[in-house]
Amino acid sequence: MSPSTTFHRAAVMPAPGMPIEVRTYPAPTIEEGAVLLRTIASEVCGTDVHLHHGRLAGVPYPLIPGHVSIGEVERVRGGVYDVNGLPISRGDVVTFLDVHGTCNACWYCLVAKATTRCPHRKVYGITYGAEPAPGLAGGWSERIYLRPNTRIIRLAHGVTPDAWIGAGCGLPTAVHAIELARIGLGSKVLIQGSGPVGLSACALALLSGAGWVGVIGAPELRLAAARSFGADWTMDVTQTTDKERLRAVRHATGGHGPDIVIEASGNPQAVPEGCELVRDAGRYVIVGQYTDHGDVGINPHSHINKKHLEIRGCWGSDFSHVYRAMEILVRFGSRIDWSSLITKRYGLEEVGAALADVEAQRVVKAVIVP
Amino acid sequence: MSPSTTFHRAAVMPAPGMPIEVRTYPAPTIEEGAVLLRTIASEVCGTDVHLHHGRLAGVPYPLIPGHVSIGEVERVRGGVYDVNGLPISRGDVVTFLDVHGTCNACWYCLVAKATTRCPHRKVYGITYGAEPAPGLAGGWSERIYLRPNTRIIRLAHGVTPDAWIGAGCGLPTAVHAIELARIGLGSKVLIQGSGPVGLSACALALLSGAGWVGVIGAPELRLAAARSFGADWTMDVTQTTDKERLRAVRHATGGHGPDIVIEASGNPQAVPEGCELVRDAGRYVIVGQYTDHGDVGINPHSHINKKHLEIRGCWGSDFSHVYRAMEILVRFGSRIDWSSLITKRYGLEEVGAALADVEAQRVVKAVIVP
Amino acid sequence: MSPSTTFHRAAVMPAPGMPIEVRTYPAPTIEEGAVLLRTIASEVCGTDVHLHHGRLAGVPYPLIPGHVSIGEVERVRGGVYDVNGLPISRGDVVTFLDVHGTCNACWYCLVAKATTRCPHRKVYGITYGAEPAPGLAGGWSERIYLRPNTRIIRLAHGVTPDAWIGAGCGLPTAVHAIELARIGLGSKVLIQGSGPVGLSACALALLSGAGWVGVIGAPELRLAAARSFGADWTMDVTQTTDKERLRAVRHATGGHGPDIVIEASGNPQAVPEGCELVRDAGRYVIVGQYTDHGDVGINPHSHINKKHLEIRGCWGSDFSHVYRAMEILVRFGSRIDWSSLITKRYGLEEVGAALADVEAQRVVKAVIVP
Amino acid sequence: MSPSTTFHRAAVMPAPGMPIEVRTYPAPTIEEGAVLLRTIASEVCGTDVHLHHGRLAGVPYPLIPGHVSIGEVERVRGGVYDVNGLPISRGDVVTFLDVHGTCNACWYCLVAKATTRCPHRKVYGITYGAEPAPGLAGGWSERIYLRPNTRIIRLAHGVTPDAWIGAGCGLPTAVHAIELARIGLGSKVLIQGSGPVGLSACALALLSGAGWVGVIGAPELRLAAARSFGADWTMDVTQTTDKERLRAVRHATGGHGPDIVIEASGNPQAVPEGCELVRDAGRYVIVGQYTDHGDVGINPHSHINKKHLEIRGCWGSDFSHVYRAMEILVRFGSRIDWSSLITKRYGLEEVGAALADVEAQRVVKAVIVP
Repeated sequence: MSPSTTFHRAAVMPAPGMPIEVRTYPAPTIEEGAVLLRTIASEVCGTDVHLHHGRLAGVPYPLIPGHVSIGEVERVRGGVYDVNGLPISRGDVVTFLDVHGTCNACWYCLVAKATTRCPHRKVYGITYGAEPAPGLAGGWSERIYLRPNTRIIRLAHGVTPDAWIGAGCGLPTAVHAIELARIGLGSKVLIQGSGPVGLSACALALLSGAGWVGVIGAPELRLAAARSFGADWTMDVTQTTDKERLRAVRHATGGHGPDIVIEASGNPQAVPEGCELVRDAGRYVIVGQYTDHGDVGINPHSHINKKHLEIRGCWGSDFSHVYRAMEILVRFGSRIDWSSLITKRYGLEEVGAALADVEAQRVVKAVIVP
Repeated sequence: MSPSTTFHRAAVMPAPGMPIEVRTYPAPTIEEGAVLLRTIASEVCGTDVHLHHGRLAGVPYPLIPGHVSIGEVERVRGGVYDVNGLPISRGDVVTFLDVHGTCNACWYCLVAKATTRCPHRKVYGITYGAEPAPGLAGGWSERIYLRPNTRIIRLAHGVTPDAWIGAGCGLPTAVHAIELARIGLGSKVLIQGSGPVGLSACALALLSGAGWVGVIGAPELRLAAARSFGADWTMDVTQTTDKERLRAVRHATGGHGPDIVIEASGNPQAVPEGCELVRDAGRYVIVGQYTDHGDVGINPHSHINKKHLEIRGCWGSDFSHVYRAMEILVRFGSRIDWSSLITKRYGLEEVGAALADVEAQRVVKAVIVP
Repeated sequence: MSPSTTFHRAAVMPAPGMPIEVRTYPAPTIEEGAVLLRTIASEVCGTDVHLHHGRLAGVPYPLIPGHVSIGEVERVRGGVYDVNGLPISRGDVVTFLDVHGTCNACWYCLVAKATTRCPHRKVYGITYGAEPAPGLAGGWSERIYLRPNTRIIRLAHGVTPDAWIGAGCGLPTAVHAIELARIGLGSKVLIQGSGPVGLSACALALLSGAGWVGVIGAPELRLAAARSFGADWTMDVTQTTDKERLRAVRHATGGHGPDIVIEASGNPQAVPEGCELVRDAGRYVIVGQYTDHGDVGINPHSHINKKHLEIRGCWGSDFSHVYRAMEILVRFGSRIDWSSLITKRYGLEEVGAALADVEAQRVVKAVIVP
Repeated sequence: MSPSTTFHRAAVMPAPGMPIEVRTYPAPTIEEGAVLLRTIASEVCGTDVHLHHGRLAGVPYPLIPGHVSIGEVERVRGGVYDVNGLPISRGDVVTFLDVHGTCNACWYCLVAKATTRCPHRKVYGITYGAEPAPGLAGGWSERIYLRPNTRIIRLAHGVTPDAWIGAGCGLPTAVHAIELARIGLGSKVLIQGSGPVGLSACALALLSGAGWVGVIGAPELRLAAARSFGADWTMDVTQTTDKERLRAVRHATGGHGPDIVIEASGNPQAVPEGCELVRDAGRYVIVGQYTDHGDVGINPHSHINKKHLEIRGCWGSDFSHVYRAMEILVRFGSRIDWSSLITKRYGLEEVGAALADVEAQRVVKAVIVP
């Protein structure tokens, strides 16, 4: 390492359960096709809390978390292009799909066309660790190193970094869920969960022309955000029983129940309740169960078979969801203010506090500004 | 009642848990648009066992069971036509959709287009009781009275009554399930359950061009029937553990697991197992849970969300499924011998024995010949 | 006919090409299940112009046109219910599906499930003539006689007769087309035609979350209506060449062309142009060709095969489309003002002028107030 | 070039309309990830005739045609794997997707997910010319050079080279068309065209459980092949009028017409005829129009709108279609003998005769054995 080597600071999870540390890494060598970003902002999402508790398998600690981030291109080596064939250049403000390395060569990619189940996928900030080189693989860092073939997209004209980070990974995730939900004009849609995924799903259901959108969640801070987006109805899950919610939802939807329910709570108990709430021959999209919180009892007869129910599990996002998310912010940013979800900003030294605030649901969206 | 009144004998369930009785009913008055059939044969299905134990709600005992039947038209009043506009006439050998009274006027029929959830549906042999008049509403009877607007279909040329009754209600049910399963050429399909629905689903998967069809079930008599239909692989659920089945199915399907699993066992425990067995981003059709056998534990994270699984509950049949079933017997009757599923025939006095044989799985298909 | 018989006035097309006459008909006898409406308003649609020229086959002149109408229930005999099972009562303000008699018994209804192709369908104001009895089968009349099993729907709270009639048959038709169009959030949608169907399709595309909606049509009066609904882009088809339109649409949609094109112009020439305009692997819904205006040349190689194009012809509406239309007016009536499409109102004596104004496109929507 | 350089012979189209020449090329340098095949056989398809006449745009003559081929791996450099992750090794008998270079990085690949419209696609034997290096890009050659990232698949156990080449590019093309056709059990399917695509579509429709499969084509040699595959009905297009065919098809399909028509003839005139033949609310897959043979007249009203028709243009294949084709040969090779389509084999010097025989339809499938 020469005396002139530059160093970058990053917030690191050394191992599950260990306190966050700010560490310093040398600037990486830029490969052909790679990009170095100066981080503008990176989100804290519920997954980061789970990462801190060691609840995900296959995570190569030490880890620099931060899978959805925005930055300014500081260095780029060789030709790097966006999906429209336009070059990514120094000074561009960009974001990127956190998933990298979907192989386009395996049976899942080419035959099953289930690219979110490609076994070669890696995720910045989750399954790419802080080491070995090239490192700088997460957004809670002054710089982010984007390896060749990372799917990069410029922040569109009129979209602020705050809007993108306020939406965070919840928006592309919700775009994917909404795709599976196939909302028709006038459909009645219930969202279970009022975290970032639930709030974005609420917004997207409204933008899709739903005839009624309800949200069951907590705490009130988040339900208020749902109402500010335009939700027709909200109910606090911590203040009500499942029977009360069933009665209230039936009443609010004209007796039949919602045509579509989207589970975005992560609570296994939400699943049998969603099966109860959705109308007969309806559709139930389960997108919130990203972490294993154990089993739950369902009744196959009344919840699925007799109900003639369609259930769609929804795992991961691909680049199309990031691209659509950007289009949605351009188109509907004046109608839905995703930046309003940002409750608080934290420096690299404050990451521990950010995680605690997210876990305690004291914030809707916490943002790291390195 | 005049001295010349004709009487017809029928096997009746007087109430749940009570022995079957043979009772005698006067010939009904034929309304305009109605048809009286001289019964040729009627099936015993698993639902009849549940009816005998009183496991279904809303059944108006006393009941003449027998929802899939075949008969010869003895009397018809006024013009009664099939879907092609051809008149139903005396002497025709016909069958009919057991569901009657789907209203084509309610929200489920007209807006949701979920006609199998129409609240006005009635089912011959299940929710139409032996009384009051007009009665004769089930097939375990010398005559069956078909009310106006019953969907009647002639037994097609080349299709024997034995083929139709051997297929029984399992075939239209499987036609509906296969519709939801959307089997592509070469798809690998696993069937859970080897009763009449499972065996028909096995046959239909093969006829749809599946690349591999496996059946998990019991007893051996039924697994042998599956193999005689062409199943590539069978496994006895009573002789193996779930881990052994998982390993064996993975091995038989090239590692990924089947693209599609169809649950036709009625055992709640089959549901989490099916979620395990099906490949990532696959499809799971649940058609066997027609009776409530209680709750079961599933893991929403690994079974649905991370798996990116599509689950389709499948309730009931409509006339299209009966029509397609007839077409399938015409087309493929020489390839799949549904009449071979008939293990034994019973007269009206032997109905109790038939029910016992079905419950003990000593027969694949029991047929009542009044 | 007793001295006390009531008579109702109606505007009648005696035969193709003949001037409209106002004739008088006796009040009909109300059958069990039938309803008599006092007409509040009835629309004039482009089809009525074609009817006047005799361009439709199978029309039983003399005819009282007016297939979408709104009225107050004056008489009802027996129980008549809406899809939610609520009774239709005297004094209710209602509208109804113009299609009557879809049989729910033929192969198209029950097997193909293509109810808009049921050969038994009749249409008020088009294929039900002024004679024989019961008559009063169109809306350009003081009273409308709704036969048993007409699908009736109450005007929802907050929806004005003007909104419903301003939307007219164009709205349910567009609801059907939009269903086939499967617009995703951010989809770019081009509408060909700015008549009532095109304008409603424009509105519904916007409400469905389209990322861009363009309209090609004429005259300026209608394009202005499209813009008032929120269209992003309009172009006058009479002032531009097809090459200019292609260039402009490509430019406005980022180079690829719109993801979805909806043809609502009725001009055969629009079809090859739509095939050119839509992007590769896009979708083209053809809903405007309700009358035969002759053949047109297309290039199967470049327009369909190489383009990997999906084309969906869209014929007719069913009750679900009327029901959804009502829901849309309730939900989005404050955002899209369909009543603004009403340019002029005409009494029964002025129907000839109304037809002339519609044909000359001097009005967007002409309304008959009997 | 060293004295020890090896040379390979190939049949070359020097330019449109010029006679085929056998030329000699030096063995190429093998890049990392590339494979050199010793050609076992290569097909002649209708496209090759069009190439010879210069009817395709963007072809870089001189050209070594032959896009579907089979060969033995002679050399491989670095790790080359199949979709299951198994290495491709010297001595393996393999085939490959003729399309190369689908980028997985552009808007068509990542956002529209219309990979067959990726502008970066190249096709061996069509858009990769004989020059410049590395060359040997077509199958009418002693060796074929497979560039890195070519999608290679081993000939499955039990599948003969003759079966694969007899099926040729027609089979994957038909797999794609059948995917869009969504054939249900019992569907009635009509194929227009009896060339290799039409014959494979006929076979696949039968294997998918179609209730009736008819073929309109010529000459008799090919119709006989269709019948040997199991077609229920064939008609010689050169011996009948369109009216006769319409009458005959209606009759053979019970009056309604086929549920699904697949156009595989390449004749523009087939398109309006197919629109006539298909039943109302049916589906029409257009897969045969791979070359521009000019415009044709259709009637948008009666052919598309009133018919409520779904039309699906089908362009190109991707690797999933090749993979499914191999699975189909494994599964159904004993039922459908694709090798029987090979009428004649030709050496490299006989390629001109092969093209003439294909053009004159004297053969079903001509195979080049270099």
